[in-house]
Amino acid sequence: MHSAMATETLLRRISLSLLLMLLKPNIYLCQQFSISFMQPSDCGAEKIFDISSLSCVKCGPNQISSKSGTTCICQTGFKVISSNGATVTCQQCPADTKPGVTKDGYGCIGCPGDLNEDGTCQCPAGSILVERDVNGNLLEEAICEACSPAESAFSTPDVTGSRCVRCQESFINTSLSCVCGQGNIIAGGLCFPPSNLPTSVATTVNFGQLGFAVPSVWFSKNLQSSAAACLIFSNLTACQALGNMCVMNMHSFSSITNDACGLFNTIFRATAALGSVQDISYWRSNLPWLYYGDQPGLASRALRTEALPVGFSFKGGNKNTNVNFVAAVYNARGDFLKWETVGGGNLQLCPDTATRIRAAYTFGTAYQQNCIISVSKLLKDFSEPLFYDLFMDFSVGEGERKLLAVPLLNLNLQYNGQFVNQGGNMNNWYLTRRIIMVDTLSGRENTLATRPKVIRIASDIRISFMLVPNTQRGEVYPPLISVSYSDILVSGADEQTVSVSFALEYETDQKEAQIKTDIALGVLGGVAVLYSLLKTASWKRRIASPIIDLETILKFLLFYAGDLANVFFVLTVGTGLYWLIFNKAQQFVSVLLPLPGQEERFVTYVGCAFALKAVQFLHKLLHQLSVDIFFIDWERPRGKIVEGSGEVKSMPSPVSIWRTYFVANEWNEIQTVRKINPTFQVVSVLFFLEVVGFSSLALRDPSSSLKRDPQAYTPAWSLILRYGVASTMWLVIGFLQMLFFTVIHERFVEDKIRQFVDLCSISNISVLLFSHRCFGYYIHGRSVHGYADTNMEEMNIHLKREAENLCGQRGLLPNTDTQTFQVSITHRLRQQYDRILDPLTRRNGPSRLMDASSSPFELNTKAYQAMNKFLGSVIDHAHKEMDYIVKDKLLFERVIGMEFIEPLDKSIFYNDESHSFSDVLYYGNEATLLIFDTLFFCVVDLGSQSFVLAAVLTYLEQLIFRLIRNSIGRRNLTAKTLVDERFLI
Amino acid sequence: MHSAMATETLLRRISLSLLLMLLKPNIYLCQQFSISFMQPSDCGAEKIFDISSLSCVKCGPNQISSKSGTTCICQTGFKVISSNGATVTCQQCPADTKPGVTKDGYGCIGCPGDLNEDGTCQCPAGSILVERDVNGNLLEEAICEACSPAESAFSTPDVTGSRCVRCQESFINTSLSCVCGQGNIIAGGLCFPPSNLPTSVATTVNFGQLGFAVPSVWFSKNLQSSAAACLIFSNLTACQALGNMCVMNMHSFSSITNDACGLFNTIFRATAALGSVQDISYWRSNLPWLYYGDQPGLASRALRTEALPVGFSFKGGNKNTNVNFVAAVYNARGDFLKWETVGGGNLQLCPDTATRIRAAYTFGTAYQQNCIISVSKLLKDFSEPLFYDLFMDFSVGEGERKLLAVPLLNLNLQYNGQFVNQGGNMNNWYLTRRIIMVDTLSGRENTLATRPKVIRIASDIRISFMLVPNTQRGEVYPPLISVSYSDILVSGADEQTVSVSFALEYETDQKEAQIKTDIALGVLGGVAVLYSLLKTASWKRRIASPIIDLETILKFLLFYAGDLANVFFVLTVGTGLYWLIFNKAQQFVSVLLPLPGQEERFVTYVGCAFALKAVQFLHKLLHQLSVDIFFIDWERPRGKIVEGSGEVKSMPSPVSIWRTYFVANEWNEIQTVRKINPTFQVVSVLFFLEVVGFSSLALRDPSSSLKRDPQAYTPAWSLILRYGVASTMWLVIGFLQMLFFTVIHERFVEDKIRQFVDLCSISNISVLLFSHRCFGYYIHGRSVHGYADTNMEEMNIHLKREAENLCGQRGLLPNTDTQTFQVSITHRLRQQYDRILDPLTRRNGPSRLMDASSSPFELNTKAYQAMNKFLGSVIDHAHKEMDYIVKDKLLFERVIGMEFIEPLDKSIFYNDESHSFSDVLYYGNEATLLIFDTLFFCVVDLGSQSFVLAAVLTYLEQLIFRLIRNSIGRRNLTAKTLVDERFLI
Repeated sequence: MHSAMATETLLRRISLSLLLMLLKPNIYLCQQFSISFMQPSDCGAEKIFDISSLSCVKCGPNQISSKSGTTCICQTGFKVISSNGATVTCQQCPADTKPGVTKDGYGCIGCPGDLNEDGTCQCPAGSILVERDVNGNLLEEAICEACSPAESAFSTPDVTGSRCVRCQESFINTSLSCVCGQGNIIAGGLCFPPSNLPTSVATTVNFGQLGFAVPSVWFSKNLQSSAAACLIFSNLTACQALGNMCVMNMHSFSSITNDACGLFNTIFRATAALGSVQDISYWRSNLPWLYYGDQPGLASRALRTEALPVGFSFKGGNKNTNVNFVAAVYNARGDFLKWETVGGGNLQLCPDTATRIRAAYTFGTAYQQNCIISVSKLLKDFSEPLFYDLFMDFSVGEGERKLLAVPLLNLNLQYNGQFVNQGGNMNNWYLTRRIIMVDTLSGRENTLATRPKVIRIASDIRISFMLVPNTQRGEVYPPLISVSYSDILVSGADEQTVSVSFALEYETDQKEAQIKTDIALGVLGGVAVLYSLLKTASWKRRIASPIIDLETILKFLLFYAGDLANVFFVLTVGTGLYWLIFNKAQQFVSVLLPLPGQEERFVTYVGCAFALKAVQFLHKLLHQLSVDIFFIDWERPRGKIVEGSGEVKSMPSPVSIWRTYFVANEWNEIQTVRKINPTFQVVSVLFFLEVVGFSSLALRDPSSSLKRDPQAYTPAWSLILRYGVASTMWLVIGFLQMLFFTVIHERFVEDKIRQFVDLCSISNISVLLFSHRCFGYYIHGRSVHGYADTNMEEMNIHLKREAENLCGQRGLLPNTDTQTFQVSITHRLRQQYDRILDPLTRRNGPSRLMDASSSPFELNTKAYQAMNKFLGSVIDHAHKEMDYIVKDKLLFERVIGMEFIEPLDKSIFYNDESHSFSDVLYYGNEATLLIFDTLFFCVVDLGSQSFVLAAVLTYLEQLIFRLIRNSIGRRNLTAKTLVDERFLI
Repeated sequence: MHSAMATETLLRRISLSLLLMLLKPNIYLCQQFSISFMQPSDCGAEKIFDISSLSCVKCGPNQISSKSGTTCICQTGFKVISSNGATVTCQQCPADTKPGVTKDGYGCIGCPGDLNEDGTCQCPAGSILVERDVNGNLLEEAICEACSPAESAFSTPDVTGSRCVRCQESFINTSLSCVCGQGNIIAGGLCFPPSNLPTSVATTVNFGQLGFAVPSVWFSKNLQSSAAACLIFSNLTACQALGNMCVMNMHSFSSITNDACGLFNTIFRATAALGSVQDISYWRSNLPWLYYGDQPGLASRALRTEALPVGFSFKGGNKNTNVNFVAAVYNARGDFLKWETVGGGNLQLCPDTATRIRAAYTFGTAYQQNCIISVSKLLKDFSEPLFYDLFMDFSVGEGERKLLAVPLLNLNLQYNGQFVNQGGNMNNWYLTRRIIMVDTLSGRENTLATRPKVIRIASDIRISFMLVPNTQRGEVYPPLISVSYSDILVSGADEQTVSVSFALEYETDQKEAQIKTDIALGVLGGVAVLYSLLKTASWKRRIASPIIDLETILKFLLFYAGDLANVFFVLTVGTGLYWLIFNKAQQFVSVLLPLPGQEERFVTYVGCAFALKAVQFLHKLLHQLSVDIFFIDWERPRGKIVEGSGEVKSMPSPVSIWRTYFVANEWNEIQTVRKINPTFQVVSVLFFLEVVGFSSLALRDPSSSLKRDPQAYTPAWSLILRYGVASTMWLVIGFLQMLFFTVIHERFVEDKIRQFVDLCSISNISVLLFSHRCFGYYIHGRSVHGYADTNMEEMNIHLKREAENLCGQRGLLPNTDTQTFQVSITHRLRQQYDRILDPLTRRNGPSRLMDASSSPFELNTKAYQAMNKFLGSVIDHAHKEMDYIVKDKLLFERVIGMEFIEPLDKSIFYNDESHSFSDVLYYGNEATLLIFDTLFFCVVDLGSQSFVLAAVLTYLEQLIFRLIRNSIGRRNLTAKTLVDERFLI
């Protein structure tokens, strides 16, 4: 019942939704609250756009839409009868009597002459149209009255043509009339007397990047008049306008004198008598200051002579990181508009949040802003080009504000056709002033109202500060603004874009630092050579080979690689730490970070350190994987085999091999034990860098806060600082871990190395290790109880007796505790050792007939027993010709890691409390491993700039090398100790 | 010699630098290229600001600076004699004959009356000043002529007072004269006939948040005239202006009818006859559309009835994610300015990069923008308030553009003093139209030129879209714009700021999803109860206790916690994956992410899953740490002790304990072996999330790309998606690792569990484990060779024989291979077991006199031997009353994990090839561990939203629990197997 109902409901639903789907198009069409899009330009001549209903409505009879498209007006020849706000009524004027319409549109009037296109009366030039008498009564017929141009009246029609007003002053000045007389020049609505300016001027603007010149309507309208008004009338605005045209010409000048900059320079020279202003010789009275002089070397004098009056400091009470720029803003016509603080929207074209825009003006923050701006937006926002005279703003003393003129390096400036500012040689530069951000004016071809053919945009602005060398008070040379313009042919497509960038750079002279680094590298490199030579000598001694052969040289190079890696590491970490500390902690600015281009050398050093360290690490790894090791079992049979019914056979009961298995197994396990936990190391470094936020210290700014607001501006990374932070973090955490493990963990929890030595002693097994042919280590493990192969009861008794000090001491010599030794063995002993192992070594060679009978198992067992017996007897002083002595190592021997005495006659056992046998394990090579890991981490990070990736790869690197070390080390252990690999689990 | 020179140089340098330091202040003062800051307002009345030199210069005699401060003009009463651009010359007008100065400033003239303040002649109201005759000749004395206001002339002085022109049309219309006659009303420069509008209007603007009203100069100037012009003359602009004033009053209305909205509504009702436009009944002809009607429930009808005509789709050929808004823009005077595309700068007040601004209008991208804007910037940028009528823009079919009116929810609207729009009940809402972003106009008190006393800003704008329920075609209801305004008292301080936010939200109805989740939770929860009951029953069986006591209930709750945790985990991972897949992969929009507020329930589920899983994990851990284990040594003594001179004593030689040590040591090592590498798991999850970029999938937008442009807008995180991505990543990588370890690693490299079983067999040692009182596991390790405590030679022979299949099989039953069993033991056996261990257990209790003699060592050894003997004999079927049988487990028994047969008489050994003894190790509980780690990771991430932190803490969690498991597990092993802890290394 239920189910049937459910099915029915379902079916009904499906049919309903099908129906709805069919109906949906209709629903779309009768959508509520939707209207069609219309705009004034869509309505045509006879309709207007109703601003209330947002649609087109038809005008009344005899009406057309006005220019704005939102009101109806009467057709030409019709007058308005009544107009009550929304609607007008129109009536045709009688064509015979009063054909004209008055200017206010409300009356018909007779005309003295013809009609204009809009239906009003026309008057000749110099005359005005009079429609009403002086009291406002409409005349029957309009009158044209001529304005009197001559002296005392000096009148001319006003712009509406309805009154006579005093004419323009330059006409009166030049010709004492409102007519510019013979010999005078009319330009731009002004009348000039003849002067020494060229009569024809170059009014095309050359757009170099596009390879063509545009005849500019702005230049043709204003260039000549501005120049003349500037020179002849000393018109300040005209002078500025002329200067602006020179700026629009990219300050370029050559021998041609009739272009904007040519005219400017002509006037500059001609007005030398007026003197300069503000005590700046390049700034002529009445003229804008456009150029610094053209003497060679002026740029470096202007930029590198005097420091700014205010020092910068990053911290403390005198903290001063404000970089304030102000600009005097002019428009193209030469009017001074205002003083404007430089910030968002003037030099920085890219829109961004206010915080990020402001971040540019904090001293020491490397700032870089890039974006792509659409040309249509530029055309809209910069319809009136603005010109900026830039100054840096200081407040010296009480209230007085001093401004420092900031020189501009216009990279597009051409001097006689050469781009002199694009070279690196400061002495060839021509510094200028006044910057235009977007020039949408000079590229207009026919009228000022049309869209420009070409626009020019300051697409790359770079403000650079240079620190005074060796300053301690944050002194900085005046900044330089480099600007590079792009010319864009406006194609009309809306998606046309242009890429824009803005940057602030802070430099110091890095030469001295480089020299110091080079000296340190040389000195330490020399020390490294000596140390490597010493190591090579020690190695020669230990392999007991006096000849200097190719292998020796190779070995020297390998040692040298390791030492040189350390030199590079110390140098790079020192440098990184230096920049980290000095950049982030300095109060007064005394150093500034190297620029990205100057970091290459440093990166090369890091690369060298890593490559050399990798060589050393692999060398050590290979060395560890090939040590000779043997476990000497001291246990002797304690019983005789009992067989069957309790009859004792003469065969001694076998000594159990399980203690050897146990010891071998433990040795296998401590192969890759380290003084730190390497994974914890990676994870905690990552934690401090990424979660706590130490990575923020690597940003190119002076702030030393760890947490940055995500909304704030994030400067670029400095590779040196990243390396500095990461390597310091590695070393510090590594050191803390080592401290924890040696001081706390190994003392109170577990010390794997000491445990192994104890185990040897308890299990009655000694370990003999040869890291070199004639040098190695010995762990004395003879049980003080004489035997260890026993049951739990006796083992517990042994342990208890030792705990209660009831038995002898464990040392090799009587009454000593020293169980671990470095051994320097004689050539003879080593030969004997090799001879015992010979059958096994030969087994791996080509098989021979005589070996056919002996299986590898038997060989193994035989060799093991022979070796056990031989080494046991050697330790027991049983072989007179292979005796040994025990002695302490000299302090100096310890320090340089080399034995002075050659074991010619007797082997020498050096007491070694510090368990230096761990040198053949990971444990004894923590420094190398830690530095290798550090460099691996840093190199990955420098390449990818991601600490997370670096951490992941470092973990994998550690994992892989640990696996390699373990598995090959196990195989070596099997081969050398003859313990079956299956027991090393 | 050298050193002396160096010292001298040093001294010289120091003295030089001291000298320089003393000189430095002077250097600062004579800084090149620096100027003092001056601006026009600093120059005073007698100086002007020279725009060339950027300094103040003095004007000539009898001159003062003009208003702009950049040019000199003649004093009052002085005329200009000559003016050549830069300089003017002034001359005083003769006070007796021609005291007045002409309006152009170049002449002196006699005046018919008094002088104005600026020295020109004064004329009475309605008259004009005539200085020149019609041809432009200057008169000797100026004349005042009255304009004729009467019919046919209709003239009045123009704004300059120098000509008579036709007067304003409303005067002529109303009174047929240029004088507004008796009974008519002059308002705002217009003349109105009497109407039914109130004669006095409320011109104060109420700023509710500040608690006071401001008498607004804009309202007092324009409110009455706009209302009258709108009603009487149907003036479209006036109607819009009136509407705008209503908008500035926050659309608030009440019974008072003489405020802006009251007047609007009066006119709305009065013009009902005109009809509505665009088929929208709320949109009256000539009037702006301000209100949706006031019927209850209209808001939900307008917002939830019809979908938008265009469906949204995220992918594929029909991809449509554009949300386009356009606005009809009006100024305060009511002029229609333009159609404007909504984007940066109109609704979004916060500046940002163009890309990020545009990102708001991509459907599905949760967008949130906040910033703090300075009031001074608002005053500057929004000096003219703009009013926006918002529409959503569609293009239906070919070229036709349809606009849909977007309703506005003004939270500040008051209806009879109630903030009706602030409640959550949609039926009480009053939807409106027309938004003003910043109102700097209504708060101006005295003149329009002064700074406003109060400004009002749309400080919180929120556009919300609601998906049509169950849509498959991306249908969306019309958006709603909620706007909340802030009133700010302009205090004049420059640092006054206001916080502004803008957001787009996308909602779906989550009720159905919640119901589904609840159903799933209920069903799965029920299953979990059943399963937990089963587990409890199995546990009761295994501890051989039939009573249902408190412990049973506790145990049931613990089991239930684990099962419920799994239910929650499955549910949350499923939900996360569902949202991940459907949100990121859907083509047509059919689901949208829950809003942050709707995620709480999900987070609670995750929290429950984690808490319950933690309980289960700790329970399992505790259980594992208290298992009973014993190593049975099968080895029997093979020899007799030989003492002194080869005499054999009758004492058997002790069986070496080292094999037991070895096995115990191995067991200790495999305690925390897992089926995956947990650190690798954490590191690789981190790698995929953070380096490869899977974390990008958790952003609240429809994009499924892994790499995001750092410049692009980054939406907020979705917690559900973060959980979905992270948990999926954990499970997938965990599964892949398990696959790798079981299929490749354990088969070809190393299988720690199988190795242990093999070791038992080779070392002649069996393992008996009791996980419960009467249930456990048995690993049969009796050597097939009879003994194992022998030397290397024999061991090698044993191994070789086994490899060559020359000996028996390892199984417990003859000719079988099965070495591992689950054991269900009788109560009697367990009692015996406990009895042997009793002395040891009692040792930990209070000491008694009778125990004084026996040391713990002895007790240990005795107990070990007794136990070894007892268990060995049990396995050997030596105890008839404690015999056992071996059988296979039924399939169903395996599946539900419970034994059907109770071991009453004989213990039962179940064959167990799958090594299920690993259940008491980490190895057998991989699922629990993996899920616990996953939840730990996700919970940390949900709390901190940082995958790096989650990875670090998860690593630490794993490390700590591994350490705990290892160390306490070792102690348990020592206590139960009686092996000294020092050998477990």
